[in-house]
Amino acid sequence: MSGAAVAPGSVRIFDTTLRDGEQAPGAALTAAEKLEVARHLVRLNVDVIEAGFPAASPGDFEAVQRIARETRGVAVAALARCRDGDPQRAVEAIRVAERPQLHVFISTSDIHLEHQLHITREQAIAEAVKWVRYGREQLGPDAEIEFSAMDATRTDTDYLLKVYEAVVDAGATTVNVPDTVGYAIPSEFGALVKRIVDLVGSAATVSIHCHNDLGLATANTLAALQAGARQLEVTINGLGERAGNASLEEVVMALRTRPTQFPDLVTRVQTEQITAASRLVSYLTGFAVQPNKAIVGSNAFAHESGIHQDGVLKNPLTYEIMTPQSVGLTGNTLSIGKLSGRRGLQGKLRELGHQLEGEALDTIYRQAIALADAKKDVTDADLLALLEQRASAVPASVELVGWSVTSSHGGKATGSVSLTVNGVDRSAEATGNGPVDALYSAVDAALQPVLGWRPVLIDYEIKAVSAGEDAQGQALVRCRRSSDEGPGALVVSGHGLSTNIIEASLEGYLVAVNKLRGAEINGVSVAFVSPRVVEEPS
Amino acid sequence: MSGAAVAPGSVRIFDTTLRDGEQAPGAALTAAEKLEVARHLVRLNVDVIEAGFPAASPGDFEAVQRIARETRGVAVAALARCRDGDPQRAVEAIRVAERPQLHVFISTSDIHLEHQLHITREQAIAEAVKWVRYGREQLGPDAEIEFSAMDATRTDTDYLLKVYEAVVDAGATTVNVPDTVGYAIPSEFGALVKRIVDLVGSAATVSIHCHNDLGLATANTLAALQAGARQLEVTINGLGERAGNASLEEVVMALRTRPTQFPDLVTRVQTEQITAASRLVSYLTGFAVQPNKAIVGSNAFAHESGIHQDGVLKNPLTYEIMTPQSVGLTGNTLSIGKLSGRRGLQGKLRELGHQLEGEALDTIYRQAIALADAKKDVTDADLLALLEQRASAVPASVELVGWSVTSSHGGKATGSVSLTVNGVDRSAEATGNGPVDALYSAVDAALQPVLGWRPVLIDYEIKAVSAGEDAQGQALVRCRRSSDEGPGALVVSGHGLSTNIIEASLEGYLVAVNKLRGAEINGVSVAFVSPRVVEEPS
Repeated sequence: MSGAAVAPGSVRIFDTTLRDGEQAPGAALTAAEKLEVARHLVRLNVDVIEAGFPAASPGDFEAVQRIARETRGVAVAALARCRDGDPQRAVEAIRVAERPQLHVFISTSDIHLEHQLHITREQAIAEAVKWVRYGREQLGPDAEIEFSAMDATRTDTDYLLKVYEAVVDAGATTVNVPDTVGYAIPSEFGALVKRIVDLVGSAATVSIHCHNDLGLATANTLAALQAGARQLEVTINGLGERAGNASLEEVVMALRTRPTQFPDLVTRVQTEQITAASRLVSYLTGFAVQPNKAIVGSNAFAHESGIHQDGVLKNPLTYEIMTPQSVGLTGNTLSIGKLSGRRGLQGKLRELGHQLEGEALDTIYRQAIALADAKKDVTDADLLALLEQRASAVPASVELVGWSVTSSHGGKATGSVSLTVNGVDRSAEATGNGPVDALYSAVDAALQPVLGWRPVLIDYEIKAVSAGEDAQGQALVRCRRSSDEGPGALVVSGHGLSTNIIEASLEGYLVAVNKLRGAEINGVSVAFVSPRVVEEPS
Repeated sequence: MSGAAVAPGSVRIFDTTLRDGEQAPGAALTAAEKLEVARHLVRLNVDVIEAGFPAASPGDFEAVQRIARETRGVAVAALARCRDGDPQRAVEAIRVAERPQLHVFISTSDIHLEHQLHITREQAIAEAVKWVRYGREQLGPDAEIEFSAMDATRTDTDYLLKVYEAVVDAGATTVNVPDTVGYAIPSEFGALVKRIVDLVGSAATVSIHCHNDLGLATANTLAALQAGARQLEVTINGLGERAGNASLEEVVMALRTRPTQFPDLVTRVQTEQITAASRLVSYLTGFAVQPNKAIVGSNAFAHESGIHQDGVLKNPLTYEIMTPQSVGLTGNTLSIGKLSGRRGLQGKLRELGHQLEGEALDTIYRQAIALADAKKDVTDADLLALLEQRASAVPASVELVGWSVTSSHGGKATGSVSLTVNGVDRSAEATGNGPVDALYSAVDAALQPVLGWRPVLIDYEIKAVSAGEDAQGQALVRCRRSSDEGPGALVVSGHGLSTNIIEASLEGYLVAVNKLRGAEINGVSVAFVSPRVVEEPS
């Protein structure tokens, strides 16, 4: 209805991919990988990056501090329980940020207070108030201090309102309403948020944080927005605990596509960066995005049935409510011959959402030229795979020198491997069910005397990067150390990329071994309550 | 609030996995595969199976008719445009069903009428009325006749109400409101559905069909239910065009988990069958379910962060709003030694949602015993992989006799393959970037003289079925014929399973070749408006 243009930024996008997202089992990232994701979040132009949970581990602390130090133009948040030690670590990690945002939380539902924390409602309020005050004192009058009432949607509403009132009085400028267990239905969640918005008025921003256990996280987020919430906590690809969080791309594109339903509500997000960010997070975490995922699935913009194809050919508006270009999806394939050198490649990479120069650009250029010798067509997908492999590089103490393998129908495979470990040659032979089994066993045999443990394979997959029998294969391998068992064991992922799937498999395995070895040397942190999978080798 | 027990079935679950779901690019199934999915839908106890679109192709017609003939205890629906030819084919296909449900549709939005159909609003009503009457005459007074106003959410509301009024007068007993482009927001969609419910009263059931382009399909479905809709069109895993449809598992579990929000609204669905159905559909279509997919993702019931683990150990209710058992998720691993023979295996398979006896049971038993020789632990995942491989079996005119391959670092791989084609020996050698490239090229060389075309690889992936270097690898291969290009080309998928990934890769490739060959011999249908990927070799 409003004819005037709406100012961007009336809705604050709080991205928690690096905190709640990274808590998903198997999604742990190294500090370098977290920093790479943070760079993409800056390019996306989110308002707040929740970088981690500094008290969880020294690795998490370091990653948060690096992001706080190295990113600009965005607020950096860190999570802390309302418990002595946590907020201090969080403040220490984010103090260097351009705009630090302390995020303290405590459970408020009776089931959590009674069965987990063993404290009374009054004690919970006292703790909340204490640590909000602490944050305000430490970070000064201009900092954003956020308080979350964990399990808010299962908390007695009258008590919940008392909690929010107390923390706002104590200096909280953002109050967050998490649907921790993914339990809310949009109509009831909107009504709850409305009561909180009415309570705090202009004294604080109301924030929401929705989990997707019943598939309703995006809808609950939008219902809360319509009810007056102005900070939305979301993640790329909906990554997060269990069924994950509300997904950034769905929330942002719903606002953009249906402006009449959300009058005067606009984010600052550069939607054209969505596809690149989605791909990077999927790659680094090893979490596939399903083909039918909204906005970022490979089929999200595909029209299959004859009727739909017919309509789209006649007029795209018949079946398209947003364009693929608006989320940065380019459909181009390219022939490497037409790149006209490094400059052409640089332009192409920029189109794909990546800015490279100098040595990094030279490396990708050399790899692309070499690839053009091995396969007929070098496509966007091939370039993205090269970029991704680069993003997950780790310092290598174990390096591959050579290998060979033979395998046949019905028989055992036989393989040999030559490695260097800190420059010293190691080689071994082994047999196995197939070539990968044989070569992994040979690697194990070559390394066991040096390491004192062997890598244990948890998960393995290979995907072709493009069509064609000559395509590159992208391997994803997850491993732990044989000496590290149980639910708290450190599990790392390793990626490999080659037109030979055996080479890609070995490369991924050795990346995982190098990460495990780095973690062993530098010391691995465990979580504070019970062991958590943490992967911070540096 | 109501103390009395609620009768099951007050909400009709209309599953369209085999119609809208199968329209997803790359998800096409053979008639045998569609029948296998239909059997699982019967076990799930859905109310209606929409089996296909009989006018789309002879293959689709045959699949719908087989499902209509062979399933009992469920209504079988078929889709038809309001256009001469379509409804006749649909009626012919479903007439043999225990409870046939004809589903006719026509677009009603101005954008579709003007830009795609080139007809007036009045003409659209006349067509709708004509074909609803036809269905009623053909199928008699007791049959369910359903009418859909395609693109209803972008249709002028006053006109939309006129359309529904006219078709109910003509004999439609279900009126469906599709959000064809995935455009609706729950609050507005609920309001629209309420107007339609008020209009038709008890004369017809109001149905809804929501697409997920903005991530809101489940929420829109539930909002419509709260507004009075009583038939919900959903798919397993949310499969479907573009970002897919509302997912059955999310809608059903939301109702079950939050009964106070949906008083007196209960489905008949056996939720314990959800996991088995989800796995089967994912496997047969080759569409991965992402780890953070609600209800059926591999992480949906995983608790990772220390805080959550701590809570769940103290009391599961702290973070679990539904149990893994309620959706049929068993966490067991088993050792094959403890199966105590075929009977033990049969019980185990039943737990996993599969009922086998006789020869089928013997085959799986022999395979499980053989597998126990090749790998240390045979787990539930291994048994499920064997069952799935069985579900996708096709008649084979090309069979694998033997193969061998050698590959090494930096060099070309060399492989040889021996096949029989209709019992005649064929063999060839080839080199390639890696072992799979070499062996696929050898297969191509062996087959080219017989087939006159070669298989073109569109997609390839391998996943380990379980942890461990000795795990089984599950290969998924998609191919077309070199003689069949463009957007309408027939693309088929082939699965392979072996502890040797090269063997699994070859097996998957040959399954795809056999499907392509079967399609060539039996004739492949193309869609009616513009070419569609159709995969009905039988």
